[in-house]
Amino acid sequence: MNPSNTTFSCNAFGPTGSGGESLIPSLIARCAQLAMLLEVSASPKPGNVDREHNYPDTCFEHFVASSVAVYPVLELAARSTEKIGSLLRNAVYESSAWQRGGNTHFGAFLLLIPLAMAAGEFSRDQQEQRQQKEQTCCEKVGFRLEAGDFEGLVSRAYAFVRATDCEDAVEFYRAFGHVGVRVNSVDEFDLKDPESTADLRSQDITLYALMEIARDYDLIANEWTTGFVRCLEGAKSILEFMQARNCEAEALTGGSVPTCSGTGINEAVVYTFLKLLSKHRDTFIQTKFDIETADYVSFRAGEILSGWETSGKTAQDFASILPQIQEFDSELLVKKINPGSTADIIIAGLFIALLGGLRF
Amino acid sequence: MNPSNTTFSCNAFGPTGSGGESLIPSLIARCAQLAMLLEVSASPKPGNVDREHNYPDTCFEHFVASSVAVYPVLELAARSTEKIGSLLRNAVYESSAWQRGGNTHFGAFLLLIPLAMAAGEFSRDQQEQRQQKEQTCCEKVGFRLEAGDFEGLVSRAYAFVRATDCEDAVEFYRAFGHVGVRVNSVDEFDLKDPESTADLRSQDITLYALMEIARDYDLIANEWTTGFVRCLEGAKSILEFMQARNCEAEALTGGSVPTCSGTGINEAVVYTFLKLLSKHRDTFIQTKFDIETADYVSFRAGEILSGWETSGKTAQDFASILPQIQEFDSELLVKKINPGSTADIIIAGLFIALLGGLRF
Repeated sequence: MNPSNTTFSCNAFGPTGSGGESLIPSLIARCAQLAMLLEVSASPKPGNVDREHNYPDTCFEHFVASSVAVYPVLELAARSTEKIGSLLRNAVYESSAWQRGGNTHFGAFLLLIPLAMAAGEFSRDQQEQRQQKEQTCCEKVGFRLEAGDFEGLVSRAYAFVRATDCEDAVEFYRAFGHVGVRVNSVDEFDLKDPESTADLRSQDITLYALMEIARDYDLIANEWTTGFVRCLEGAKSILEFMQARNCEAEALTGGSVPTCSGTGINEAVVYTFLKLLSKHRDTFIQTKFDIETADYVSFRAGEILSGWETSGKTAQDFASILPQIQEFDSELLVKKINPGSTADIIIAGLFIALLGGLRF
Repeated sequence: MNPSNTTFSCNAFGPTGSGGESLIPSLIARCAQLAMLLEVSASPKPGNVDREHNYPDTCFEHFVASSVAVYPVLELAARSTEKIGSLLRNAVYESSAWQRGGNTHFGAFLLLIPLAMAAGEFSRDQQEQRQQKEQTCCEKVGFRLEAGDFEGLVSRAYAFVRATDCEDAVEFYRAFGHVGVRVNSVDEFDLKDPESTADLRSQDITLYALMEIARDYDLIANEWTTGFVRCLEGAKSILEFMQARNCEAEALTGGSVPTCSGTGINEAVVYTFLKLLSKHRDTFIQTKFDIETADYVSFRAGEILSGWETSGKTAQDFASILPQIQEFDSELLVKKINPGSTADIIIAGLFIALLGGLRF
């Protein structure tokens, strides 16, 4: 199996529903839901809420409910080419209406919304190209995203975020006001100051401009302003892990891949989480604690992974370092150090991988 | 908090989307998704897949992916008043297209589809009544299901299943053919015999008639033919547990309910699972093993619960019997005894409870 090469189509219905509307936005929204659910389920994911660990005020089930809640906003995003701020605010409102655990996915929505818009636009262009080639037989194919299309996807998302306007910035502040997100305020426009939106309007500050100011101390803002490069890195890491694991399994079983001895997806997410954490300082930790703490967490993540990687261990054997990861998890949970920004990047990476045909 | 009395509305968008279409079917479909996700997450759920236990060929993540996959079919069900068989087949196809773990939710779909149709019809009638009363101010309320409406909901679902026709029966056989569901065949119409659909057509057998034949040895067929009484029992049990737990918490904290010390929803599902299992023989076990095994499992479930119930323990203290439940879980997992039909009833119960405003 080559997970990055699997055709991705609307199997049950074909690309249009009973009313003739496109079902591809639904498919995109479901990939985003599944990305959020696989991320929060993955365990042990050091320091964060997962299927086996709750935080005092925010539990596993709050993340599950939020992932379900946001469906209509993500479907709308896949049909949209503007109004990221309004979509973000609606996503935050919908998430809050379905669970009482507070902020669960603010950072994830900031990444998923432009990526869902990009996927929607990509699918419409793909459909149009097919029609121009008069390949009417292919109309039923639905949506297909090859690994080679990933760069194109994130560059479309990058174009959408650069096109944000001042109204998007105002909506971002409204969304922020609805949940107590822990972020480093942009100094000039304090997120807790009700006067800020007036300042934004008078100076015509766009949401992208706000992200540019925050890029050095916020991983999500950095993704917006560098073209979602770490989301892409996450997607590739997840797909490569799954591919390596399945190749190993095929070699071991002489060709027939066991459908499940665990799906491997949990390990793929845990591995990618540690890898990204080791390479990029988590700014959520930096904001909640300090740079030194964030750097220590990255160092520990790298230490655990490097022992396994340099000894040439295989994806299949990843389970052998789980005890060390569990120990690291316990340490971070006790200290209440949760790498929240890295989790958001993982969600976006899973979303891209699922659009690319990741199945298990 | 009275969870059965919470207003249930489309918070972010109001009842209609940007295109003017009703968003209530989306809300109904999301309640069904969340019901499936909360059920499979609940742990320890003796013998079944949960967040901590996989079966060799079917893992937790397969259930998660299937719950996400089926969204468009459930949304369509909430807009429909017929074609249960076709909806079922589409649900099964969609579930299979998103995961490789085989059958995950066949029984659950058989319950959720007519219940989603009933909820959709109920919401349309509610909207119409409001308009007749010229309560235009209430148009934004969306959908509200009170505990007193539950009986009405299941009787609507009952009417839908009684109205099924022969084409629904044929579609049911097609859906069955797509996944290897473990069921007791209706003797006259062997589910594995390709000639059966021709026989169904020549004798004009409806899907409801098939369920009537199977009702004595299949819990789901029994729900269809008795008006979803155990689904209702499940919903009430979950809501009562949550209500008792929250009242206790309020008494302990002098009025302020902690938003999370665990949400309680996991315990509510585990408790209701054991309660239903103790009262009603699980027909999935009966089919896979025999009546004696199914009866033994019910006896053990009752034994664990009765000790706790008769000693007057509170919902808050439910955690004290978790070790006994874990032991029971291990026993069933080793013997590969999985009470699959009871899990389906729990999903339907959670769905009704969520429609009734259950939040956590």
